[in-house]
Order: sequence, then structure tokens, then C-alpha cells
Amino acid sequence: MVATTQSLEELCINAIRFLAIDAVEKAKSGHPGLPMGAAPMAFVLWDRFLRFNPKNPKWFDRDRFVLSAGHGCMLQYALMYLTGYDTVSLEDIKQFRQWESQTPGHPENFITEGVEVTTGPLGQGICNAVGLAMAEAHLAARFNKPNCKIVDHYTYAILGDGCNMEGISGEACSLAGHLGLGKLIALYDDNHISIDGSTDLAFTEDVGKRFEAYGWQVLHVENGNTDLPAIEQAIATAKAENDKPTLIKVTTTIGYGSPNKANSHDVHGAALGADEVQATRENLGWSHPPFEIPEDVLSHFREAVDRGASAETEWSQLWVRYQSEYAEDAAVLGGMMQGKLPEGWDKALPTYTPDDKADATRNQSGATLNAIAGVLPGLIGGSADLAPSNKTLLKGFGDFQKGQYENRNLRFGVREHGMGAICNGIALHGPELIPYGATFLVFTDYMRGAIRLSALSHAGVIWVMTHDSVGLGEDGPTHQPVEHVASLRVIPQLTVMRPADGNETSAAYKVAVENRKVPTLLALSRQKLPNLAGSSIEKAVKGGYVLSDSDGTPELILIGTGSEVSLCVEAAEQLRASGIQVRVVSLPSWELFDAQDEAYRESVLPKAVTKRVAVEAGSSFGWYRYVGAEGAVIGVDEFGASAPGDLVMEKYGFTVERVLKTAKAVLS
Amino acid sequence: MVATTQSLEELCINAIRFLAIDAVEKAKSGHPGLPMGAAPMAFVLWDRFLRFNPKNPKWFDRDRFVLSAGHGCMLQYALMYLTGYDTVSLEDIKQFRQWESQTPGHPENFITEGVEVTTGPLGQGICNAVGLAMAEAHLAARFNKPNCKIVDHYTYAILGDGCNMEGISGEACSLAGHLGLGKLIALYDDNHISIDGSTDLAFTEDVGKRFEAYGWQVLHVENGNTDLPAIEQAIATAKAENDKPTLIKVTTTIGYGSPNKANSHDVHGAALGADEVQATRENLGWSHPPFEIPEDVLSHFREAVDRGASAETEWSQLWVRYQSEYAEDAAVLGGMMQGKLPEGWDKALPTYTPDDKADATRNQSGATLNAIAGVLPGLIGGSADLAPSNKTLLKGFGDFQKGQYENRNLRFGVREHGMGAICNGIALHGPELIPYGATFLVFTDYMRGAIRLSALSHAGVIWVMTHDSVGLGEDGPTHQPVEHVASLRVIPQLTVMRPADGNETSAAYKVAVENRKVPTLLALSRQKLPNLAGSSIEKAVKGGYVLSDSDGTPELILIGTGSEVSLCVEAAEQLRASGIQVRVVSLPSWELFDAQDEAYRESVLPKAVTKRVAVEAGSSFGWYRYVGAEGAVIGVDEFGASAPGDLVMEKYGFTVERVLKTAKAVLS
Repeated sequence: MVATTQSLEELCINAIRFLAIDAVEKAKSGHPGLPMGAAPMAFVLWDRFLRFNPKNPKWFDRDRFVLSAGHGCMLQYALMYLTGYDTVSLEDIKQFRQWESQTPGHPENFITEGVEVTTGPLGQGICNAVGLAMAEAHLAARFNKPNCKIVDHYTYAILGDGCNMEGISGEACSLAGHLGLGKLIALYDDNHISIDGSTDLAFTEDVGKRFEAYGWQVLHVENGNTDLPAIEQAIATAKAENDKPTLIKVTTTIGYGSPNKANSHDVHGAALGADEVQATRENLGWSHPPFEIPEDVLSHFREAVDRGASAETEWSQLWVRYQSEYAEDAAVLGGMMQGKLPEGWDKALPTYTPDDKADATRNQSGATLNAIAGVLPGLIGGSADLAPSNKTLLKGFGDFQKGQYENRNLRFGVREHGMGAICNGIALHGPELIPYGATFLVFTDYMRGAIRLSALSHAGVIWVMTHDSVGLGEDGPTHQPVEHVASLRVIPQLTVMRPADGNETSAAYKVAVENRKVPTLLALSRQKLPNLAGSSIEKAVKGGYVLSDSDGTPELILIGTGSEVSLCVEAAEQLRASGIQVRVVSLPSWELFDAQDEAYRESVLPKAVTKRVAVEAGSSFGWYRYVGAEGAVIGVDEFGASAPGDLVMEKYGFTVERVLKTAKAVLS
Repeated sequence: MVATTQSLEELCINAIRFLAIDAVEKAKSGHPGLPMGAAPMAFVLWDRFLRFNPKNPKWFDRDRFVLSAGHGCMLQYALMYLTGYDTVSLEDIKQFRQWESQTPGHPENFITEGVEVTTGPLGQGICNAVGLAMAEAHLAARFNKPNCKIVDHYTYAILGDGCNMEGISGEACSLAGHLGLGKLIALYDDNHISIDGSTDLAFTEDVGKRFEAYGWQVLHVENGNTDLPAIEQAIATAKAENDKPTLIKVTTTIGYGSPNKANSHDVHGAALGADEVQATRENLGWSHPPFEIPEDVLSHFREAVDRGASAETEWSQLWVRYQSEYAEDAAVLGGMMQGKLPEGWDKALPTYTPDDKADATRNQSGATLNAIAGVLPGLIGGSADLAPSNKTLLKGFGDFQKGQYENRNLRFGVREHGMGAICNGIALHGPELIPYGATFLVFTDYMRGAIRLSALSHAGVIWVMTHDSVGLGEDGPTHQPVEHVASLRVIPQLTVMRPADGNETSAAYKVAVENRKVPTLLALSRQKLPNLAGSSIEKAVKGGYVLSDSDGTPELILIGTGSEVSLCVEAAEQLRASGIQVRVVSLPSWELFDAQDEAYRESVLPKAVTKRVAVEAGSSFGWYRYVGAEGAVIGVDEFGASAPGDLVMEKYGFTVERVLKTAKAVLS
């Protein structure tokens, strides 16, 4: 394999390989195998196709690149350094996987500008890419003009065997095929190796045929190690297909160039070791010391800087023309591009009084979505095949379908995890869109990987979760969330809201819409709830507040969330009638309440009042922080049961009588 | 469609339909659409193929039937009543979806004997079926003799569009194809309707082609509504294919027979309403009142009782012969069938002293698995492509592969959720096998749907989760669990253990293996931990115990789990040196500790000692229950970071210094 003279492109590819090899070697940790094998396809893509501006990674109309096989992140960092991103310097590469470096062990968009999405958990990236392509298709359909394509970019992803084994990728890719996302191009690094060894151990399906079944164009580059023209031709063919996404299966050798470890799982996730690094240098004819890039190689890569600047300039000129010719649309799109919420948008939020009819918060959520869709041009979303139950359809905004990408109702099918990652992709396309995704609360279990990543990667998705307790009734324990609210509260950077009535539901949307950098999850009731005296948007956005109070210092505080607040209200009235000073606190969001200042929290839950009862139709886990040692929690610490919802709630103790009895026990 | 004379089989099929229609109508809740459309295929399957004994639903060698589209459970309840199961009477059917009935809103194996697995969350059932078929294949390969097939049954599943959209089904079906599970036969109720409406909204892939890509035989019954011979022929063809699982796509009309609601989503999940029920009666020529089954129909169905008794008798005779001819194997299989753990099996558990080398609990887990595999003939399992990291390979027991089903190492591929549901299926095949499934702890997020179902459905799976904290280091926040231990503790009926050293790891396996009716999840370290003085299997199985103590009543209790217990030990030594009375409590399992009697708990954590510090490299959520108002928690309430593990632990405050400082603050 030793070449006495190497072409510039071979040198470029080896430069990528050795940056990866040497960075992993220095860190004594990381994944050299994928960068070594996928360097050729990545080089061809970045050198000849990818439109981006290294000096402005956030340029609006850039192509999006997603490394779905995120463990191979040195591939991306190498390309970012070589093409001139300021966010990844040579020094940063030397700091690969070190504390507070710009080059963490998997690509993290919130650390490294220019990384579009956070990948690593397998399968997520390709689904994010589907979301990115949907965002592009949507914005293009809404804003492009026959003579002015202001939105016009491709989404590229590199994924591996692991991504293709994960069910989540099947979900989103099936949907991508259904939607005919022609500007989505995925390169499948078909290297036949995973951590356990050969894919012959567990993965012998025909991936190409499967993607054809999804409605994709499938191409095959048989020699992805050295046949650059074939890679180039395949990407060109992919770009030429407008009606289908394309999977390019690129057969490669993992760890290409390593004489003793290539094509084995040893090269997947560990440093090669000094001897093998040296042997690989010799084998590939790379005589340069670690982290030294030949001048001609670097200057070739750095042409991307001028190329990118020109591309952005050209686009900026288009944007100037767009603004002049299509001022109205430009104003909308311009605002979306800046992530500005329209002034006074929140005036559209419905408000309620106790005279308004009792209603399920899922219905009030539906009403709110419809009320704000008109004033929030970026609001787009849907349900994982539960739209009639989740109440998430935006009336008059049509279904987002092939050829109708301008519409704003997304139909995800029964694909919760894929939906989650797609919503993350839409959110991370840029500040233009505010995505929401919906299912039953219990099925957050199916999409927790994506919900966690929304929190980690600063994706301001709105998660609309209905049927939020055993109160949903007959569907029984498989459908009744018990531990879910608690298990979501524990995810960092996720705001959970469980509103008690219409005003609190509006408040939840106020929080969710304004939270553009963290996701918000709404837990909504299936069953009807009264609109409470004392609730308001202003109070509820604080996460917790005094809903009703006796005169003077209370002897007892009843704390409720969601459907159980009204129980607290009723119990408080009876207790007050018997002369007990009772406060009712509604606590729709622990995260928001905990973020209030000490004085406010003390004003709501005074330390001196130690007699407290919390009521929530969910796990008591974590509640003792609020009720303390002398308090009590009425919760559900077992699985639910199939029966009419009212009866289940009664059997599980969600009755005024139980609250009264517990309150009296706490007071005694 | 009105027929003046109907064949007996038509009547039988209508009997199923009307039991479903009338039960849903009476409950005013449920899903009539699937039973109405799938009744013909279910009738043919149950009447002509399924080998079962209604009077002994647990007969060892029965065929397994899984209704993966669990919402259609009235289909199964109707068949169970009609064929003579004692667990589903006509009265039970009238009590559909009522409190404490035998006929809950989705099939629940722990409620209704004869239901094999708990379904409802879509996609789980077909994956359970893959697990059931793997269990059969394994037991058959190990125990069958050329002249004596003591294990010889099929696994049938009915799944719908929703199951096919879920990624989990793709994961398990890809694996089933890889494994060539010839005795797995899935009937796909292809009715083109899901909750949102037509599958044209989101699901237009070629499902058959996808399954062919997985390596399945795919057959198509074009008219599943009335063409019973075609259904019969397809099942026969499926049974004749020994090398591949079979998908029979059966095209049907949802809600078949309802003149105004058939082929619409209105019939999917709600009662038809009195008028439409009447119209359907007229349309299908069914004149019988609700819950009345004509005698000839019932007696035809009830032939299943004699048929089943004969089948079981025949098998019992075979078993007698097997016991006599193959006494040794029969003893093993007989013990497994009774779910008996071999006497003294736990003597194989390794024990450790502080002199033993420090080691990661994942390594000790691997050693334990290998130590007990020889004495537990039913132990079988593997990892979702992380065997080298999870340390789950059983040496000398080979890989379970096509043609090598007798082996005990399962290779799941990167398919966590599929793995979870497959393990549930293996566990619920019967008491014979003790399955374990492994991945990184953070990826429990990918398989939470299946973990929850293991707890709900009494599947005694061992979940082996390694890399249990930010201490795993360089892979960074996408791979570092933070909230996971807390989020798993909150699942009812799941025992979580986070062992601190080798003895506690052995204790975790003692608990897990003996827990045959609930799952146990082990959270294990990537990094090395010292073997602690004072730890033992006997103490650790109590969930919490005094690891070390000062004389007399302690002033302070340090509580740790897993990798943080040794920090508590070191801190305690220093505190004691400065004259403070300190107790160290190791608390590997909250669930087990909480289940101890009050006296024991008080002996470990005396109420009078209110100065407490808990140390766990995970969310502090829930810990206040143990440390109380005067205590403190050293935890991780934010996402992790990419850097060497020791440094991350130090940066996140897991140092002796921090424990000392916190302890002093608590004491002051």
C-alpha cells in the first residue's frame, strides 16, 4: 500500500486519518477506526459538495452535515480544523477528550460551534438529519419564490452499522421515504464491524433492500477506500434525485491503513498503540510527525474558506433581493431566522375563569396550540399517531406531506423515538422553527433517548404528553403513567410542567415557547378538570404559587399538581370550615419553582410550616424534598389498573376524603 | 353481505366479532376494529393450527400465541372463552375493562392465565414472540433427541400497522431473520388504518420487502376478510419453512362488517354505539343477543378442550419416555421446567476480601456470570453489541446462532429495545430460562419501554448495566448516566442494585437469580473499585447495611452506593481520627432495604441520628428521604463532561475532601 508519490487528494485523506489517529493516541482514548475508513467519503463530500462557511458556521443556508456515527468525531474535528473553522484549532485537536476542550468524545453542538447536532447515542443523528431535511423542505416550500430560492440546502449524514441496527433509524428513515425528502443524502459506512466483532454475528440483513422498501434511492460504492470517483458520482446521483432521499452504501475497511488492526473491532474504540501507529504511518506512506499537516494539504483544504465566503456572499445578495421583492415574507422569515418571537405573541394565550367549563388539559392544550399557531409562524409539529387523543392538530394548517411541505401538521406515525429525534433536528436546524411532538405520557419511555438529547443539546422542543396518570382509566397499566413525571423531572435541563387547569396550561405554553434553548415537557390530563379560582398565567410561570389561603399563617399546606390540585382545593375548603388554617399551593413545575429566589420560595412554602401534604397521581419519589419529615405524600407507587378512570382514581386514593384524612393525620 | 345461511366457520368468526363488539359496547370503551377484521385469521389459526390445552394454559410444549396488537385483546379473550379456558368466562367478558376483572383493557399475563405476555405498548409483542421462539429453539437444540422431540412448538403472533411502525419491531425482526427462526410465524393484520387515519398519512413503505430484507419468508393473503383457505394455506406454508421466520401479510378491513365505520379509524378505539352495533348485526346476519353464543358454534370451539387434552397427553407420554431414556437430561430439563434453582447454586458466587485486587464491578459481574453459568443451566443472555465492555460473554458456552441454538451467548446487535423485549419473551416462555441483557446504563433510555414491561409482567430478567456514572470518563455526557439510577428506582417492581465491590456484586446476582418474578437491574462501574472491609453477600442482599462503625452511637452517618462507598470509608477514617463517631452505610438497593422490617432499618439508620451525608455519582433526586432535612447529598444534578474519568469525578466533587467538608458542614 506504500506509495512513493501520492496525489494531493490521497494526502488530504491521510491528513484526516492521521489527525484522528494521533489525537486518539495522545488522548489514549477514542475511536480511530471510523475516521480511518470513512475519510475518503468525508473528504469527497466536504471538498466537492458540502456548502458551508467555516468562518460563519451558522450561515443560514449552509448544507447540514451530521455525523450520526458520533464516536468517529475525530473525523469531523479533523475536517473542521483543516477547512478553517475557528472553533477547532490544532491545539483543540491535541486536547481531544480533555476537560473543557472544544473536542469532546462525541460531537456536542453546545460545545463546538459548527457541529449541528449532538450525536453518539446510535441512530439519533440520522433521525436528526431527517428533521433537518424536513425543516429545510418546510422553509423552502413556504418562502422560496420561483426566481429566488432563499432556502436551498442539502442535509448529509454519515451513519454506520450501529445506527442502522437501531430501531430509531428505521422509524425516521421510513418516514423520510414516505415524505420523499429528496435533499437528504445519507452515506452508510458499511464496514462490517461493530464492537462485538463482525456484523455476521447479528446483522446480516440487506440494508439497501430495506431502504428501498422505505422508498429511498439506494446506491452502492463498492470500494469506498480508494474509489473517489465512484463516491463523487454517487453523491452527484443522489443530488440529482429530487423525489426520494438517497442512501449511499459505501463499503469500506474500518481502520483502513492499519496493517494489523484494520478490518477488526480492535480498531473501533481504542488507540492503536505506538507501534501500530508507526506501522500505519509506514503503510500509508505518511512521514509527518503527529499534528503536522503539509502545507499543500492545508492550503487545499483551506480553499473552503474562500469558497464558503463566496457562497454566503452570493446568498446574502439573494437575501437582499428577497427582502426588496418580497418584503412581507422577508419580514416573517427574517424574524424567524433571528429567533424572535413576535411582540405580544403571548396575548394569544387563552385565559380562563372558574365559570368556564371544566375541561381536560389536553383539550386546553389543543386550544392553546391552535390559538398561538397563527401568531407563531415557526410553530410546527404533531403526534406519533395519536393526534385525535393528544389534540395536537393545527386547524387550517394542513398536513406536511410530499409536495405539501409548507404545511405545519407533522404526521409521525407510531414512531415515538424517531419523532423525538426528528423534533430535535427541526429545533437545531436554527431558531426558525418551534417544533412540538406528542404522544401519551407513558410512551415517553419509548423516546427517552431523544428527550434526554433535547435537554443536553439545547433543543427547545415542546413535548406534549397527554393521558398523564392512572386517571386515564380503562387502557390499564401498560398505558397508565406512574413513574413518568418523576423520571422526567430528574433529567437535567428539562422543564416539566403538569398544569392544573386552563390558565396553567396556557402558562405551560408561555414557558415552552419562550424556552428556546431547553425543552419543556407538558403532562396533560385525559379527564376533565375544573378551572380554578386563583390560577393565572403570571403565577403559574413561576412553577409554584399560592392558589388559595386562609388568613394569617397557615397551619397546613396542601400541595398539588395537575389533576390533583382541585382535590386540594376542595379539601382545604372543608378543613377551613372546621377552623383549620390551610394554604393550597399549586406546583406545576418543580424546575421553575426551584429557580425562583429564596424569598419567593419562602413566601410560598414557609419553612416554619412543616405540616404539609402533597397530592399527585404519580410516584411519590422525590416529593419528600417539599413535604419534609413531618409531611405526607398521596401518590402512586405501584402500577395502575384497568377500569373506568374515575373509579381507578378513587381506588388509588385520589379523593377529598383521603386528602382530609391524611391532612388530619399530619396535623395530629 | 347478509347471508341467509352461513357456514359454521362463518358463524364462529362472527361469534368472535360480536363478543368483541358487545363487550366493548357494554364497557363503553375498547377497540372493536381489530377483532372484527382479524377474526378470520385468528379463527383459522386457533381452530386449525394452534396447539394448546385450554384446561392447562401452562402446558410446557404448547404453541405460544402473542397478540402484539394488544389493544385488540377482545379478540384473544373471545377465543379463550370460546375454546374453553377457565380463566375467561362469559361473565369475565361482560366485565371487560372493569375493576379487578380477568379481562383488562390490554392483555396482561399476570392477570389472565393463558395470556403469554403483556402487550399494548406497540411493537413489544412481536419482539416478545422473537424471544419466545428463541427460547424454544434453544431448549429444543439442547434437549431434543432424534427419536424424541420433547420441545417442539411454534410461536405465532398477530401484529398490526402500529407494531410495524415501531422501531423496536424492526430490531427484533432483523435479528429473528438473522437467526433463521423457522418456527416463528407472524400474521400482519394489514388494515391500512391507524389512529390518525389511513396509513397513507405516514406509513407507505413496503413492509413485505422490508421483512424479505431481514431474511424472512413473506407471504400475502390478499383477502383476509373471507378467504379462509388462503389463510390456512399461508400458515401451512409458513410451518413448512424451517429456515426462516415467516411474515404473513393478511390484508383485512378494520371493523369488517360495520356498514358505516368499517375501514375507518372511528372503529379502531371506541365502541360502535348502539345503532351501529345493530346495523352490524343486520349486515353480518347475526341475530343473537349480546353474549349469547349459538350452541353449535360453542361446541365447535370447545373441541379445543379434547384436542388440547390429547395433545398434552401425547406429550406427557413422550416425557415419560424421555425421562426413562435420557435420565440425565431429563433431570436437568425437569428442574428447569419447575423453575427450581439447583441446590446450593449460590455457593458458586465469588467472594472477596480487601486483599483481593481492586477491580471494576463490571469485571466482577463478568466473573460472576461465568462462575454461575456452570451451575445454572437456564442462564442465557448477552449484550447489545457491547459484550467486551459489559463483560457478559460466557466462556465456553458458544454463540447462539442459526444452527447453533444450543449455545448460551446471545448476540443482540445494537438493538437495546429489541433486546429488552426479547429477554422478556425468554423469561415468560416459562421458568426454564434466566435471561440477562446488557448495555451501558445510559442506554436504558433506549429500552425503558421493555424494562418497564419486565417489571409489570413479572419477567425475572437480569439487566446488566455497566458504565454507571460520569466516572466512565472520555465518552462524555451522551454516554454518562446521571439521572438513570434514580429514574430506574422509580419504576415499580424493579429491583435496582448498585454494588460497591465484589461481594456486593455477587449479592446482586444472588438477588437477581432468586428474583424469578421481578426483574433486577445491576448498575456497574467501568472503573476499578477496592474490595471493602465489612462487605458480604449476606449483608448486601438486605439492600443496606452498616459497613463500618465507631463505637457507640454515631454522630454522623455517611451513606454511599457503588463506586462512592469507598470514598465514604476513607472520609470516615479521617473523621474518626479527628474524634468524630461515624458510621458508614452501604445502600446498594433502596428497594431491598425498604422491604426490610422496621427494626432492621432502624438498626442501620437510627432515626435519632439526623446528621447524614449521602454520596452517589448520580442525581440527588429522591435521596432526601434517607438523609432528611438536616442531611446533605453529594450527587450529580447536571449533565456530565468529556474528560478522563478520574478527573471528571474530581471535578464533579467525588473526592474525600468534599465528603469531609460536607460532613463538617452537616455537623456544624
